Amino acid sequence: MSAAHGKTAPVLDRARQEEIVRNVRPPAEDKSTRNVAFETLLRIGDNTLILGHRVSEWCGHSPALEEDIALANVSLDLIGQTQLWLGLAGEVEDKGRSADDLAFLRDAWDFKNLLITERPNDDFGYTLMRQFLFDAFHLELMKALKKSSDQRIADIAEKSAKEVAYHLERSSDLVIRLGDGTDESHRRMQKALDALWPYTGEMFLSDEIDKAAAEQGIAPDPAELRPIWESTIRAVLHEATLHIPDSTFAHKGGRQGMHTEHLGHMLTQLQWLQRAYPGASW
Amino acid sequence: MSAAHGKTAPVLDRARQEEIVRNVRPPAEDKSTRNVAFETLLRIGDNTLILGHRVSEWCGHSPALEEDIALANVSLDLIGQTQLWLGLAGEVEDKGRSADDLAFLRDAWDFKNLLITERPNDDFGYTLMRQFLFDAFHLELMKALKKSSDQRIADIAEKSAKEVAYHLERSSDLVIRLGDGTDESHRRMQKALDALWPYTGEMFLSDEIDKAAAEQGIAPDPAELRPIWESTIRAVLHEATLHIPDSTFAHKGGRQGMHTEHLGHMLTQLQWLQRAYPGASW
Repeated sequence: MSAAHGKTAPVLDRARQEEIVRNVRPPAEDKSTRNVAFETLLRIGDNTLILGHRVSEWCGHSPALEEDIALANVSLDLIGQTQLWLGLAGEVEDKGRSADDLAFLRDAWDFKNLLITERPNDDFGYTLMRQFLFDAFHLELMKALKKSSDQRIADIAEKSAKEVAYHLERSSDLVIRLGDGTDESHRRMQKALDALWPYTGEMFLSDEIDKAAAEQGIAPDPAELRPIWESTIRAVLHEATLHIPDSTFAHKGGRQGMHTEHLGHMLTQLQWLQRAYPGASW
Repeated sequence: MSAAHGKTAPVLDRARQEEIVRNVRPPAEDKSTRNVAFETLLRIGDNTLILGHRVSEWCGHSPALEEDIALANVSLDLIGQTQLWLGLAGEVEDKGRSADDLAFLRDAWDFKNLLITERPNDDFGYTLMRQFLFDAFHLELMKALKKSSDQRIADIAEKSAKEVAYHLERSSDLVIRLGDGTDESHRRMQKALDALWPYTGEMFLSDEIDKAAAEQGIAPDPAELRPIWESTIRAVLHEATLHIPDSTFAHKGGRQGMHTEHLGHMLTQLQWLQRAYPGASW
């Protein structure tokens, strides 16, 4: 090896590290209606973008053709919803950014999706369990958003809720079939539930933006969605003969822009075309 | 699912498909000394860049700390060599492109590395077998390039050969230890050899650029390197109790810019920083 390899990378001192962490944290919270609506829309639209992209990674790799097509359709639904949510976010922000700009030209710390949506796909059972846990939350969120004080939000939620109801029907059905299936499929579904459970708590946590959004009638307080979500998942997981973990520990930070390394890796692929060929169109 | 999902992607007609294939093929070969030297340097420097990046993916993931550091050092050697080879390529091309420009701002079809260098890492045994098969070739190439008619090439080869000799010593040693090791390690090394063997033939194939480079004394005819490579690998693989496949089938095209899908995925990560933050420096 050449001597040059002995060089060490520059070590950041603590003050510099803290400065960097401060920079990736959201700026002091601006509770103007515009900013609250913009942040709320990012949180909703980033969930559908990131989960939609994750699910699309299955395309051509699923265990059965029927499932391959079903997963691709779910992915397309989510990407279609993203177009509406991020399109409205750009409109609300009023800085000339389109849905594409928001999807392709932000960096990881500006994404506000739940951490569960960026989890890698793992096996088919894990992907289905992730989808089920998210769908049950997503449907309640859409139902609540149909009553948003912002008519544009209510309209998108109305349209999305129909698709999401179907997603939940499908993922519930598969979770039951695989949970209450063979020893191997049961084992994998339980393993997936155990692994994903700590990522569900984040769905129901509130911060200042959520409180302001609820006060302004834009969106529900996330905590309000928990009881109905729990009742849905308890019923399905019971039928699936799966055991809900006792832990209440929750990974969090995604909705404030603090992500796992998986998001950055995903963005390199999701954003590649617009990064390599800025402004390309067809 | 919404009706919009029924839309099919536009189907390319045959004429258009052929036009696209023509476009990714190299342009009509220009046998000027400048172009022959430029293409030759890309082929050498892209091998070290792409394999160097692949090996770097092990960083922090190797089965033992000693191996983690060793792999990182091999990766750094290869990236260091890339700096020299692509730096000279840019100088020869004389269009103002630096080594960084060539590494970060070309697209897949402009990369001229051997396909073996872009194979995914798979397990540790596979990574070591790939390294060994490449190192044995790489060392002979460096030895031959020390006699290049272009003194700048001879100088880089002189420097690189020392590092590459060490790489080969290390990978040979590990291939023997793992091949002639446990049943499991033997099985994995044989599986790796079987999988990688069809990617070795490309090392020794010639095209018009190679012929011109040999005529001009810039680089050896690749076919000339085969006997000594074969004698090296036969001795090591024999000691490793591994069986060389009989097949002479060779995947090819990498040196002409026709790559597997793995290169594109790698480039999204390798090039991300410069694509997202063009011109960023520190």
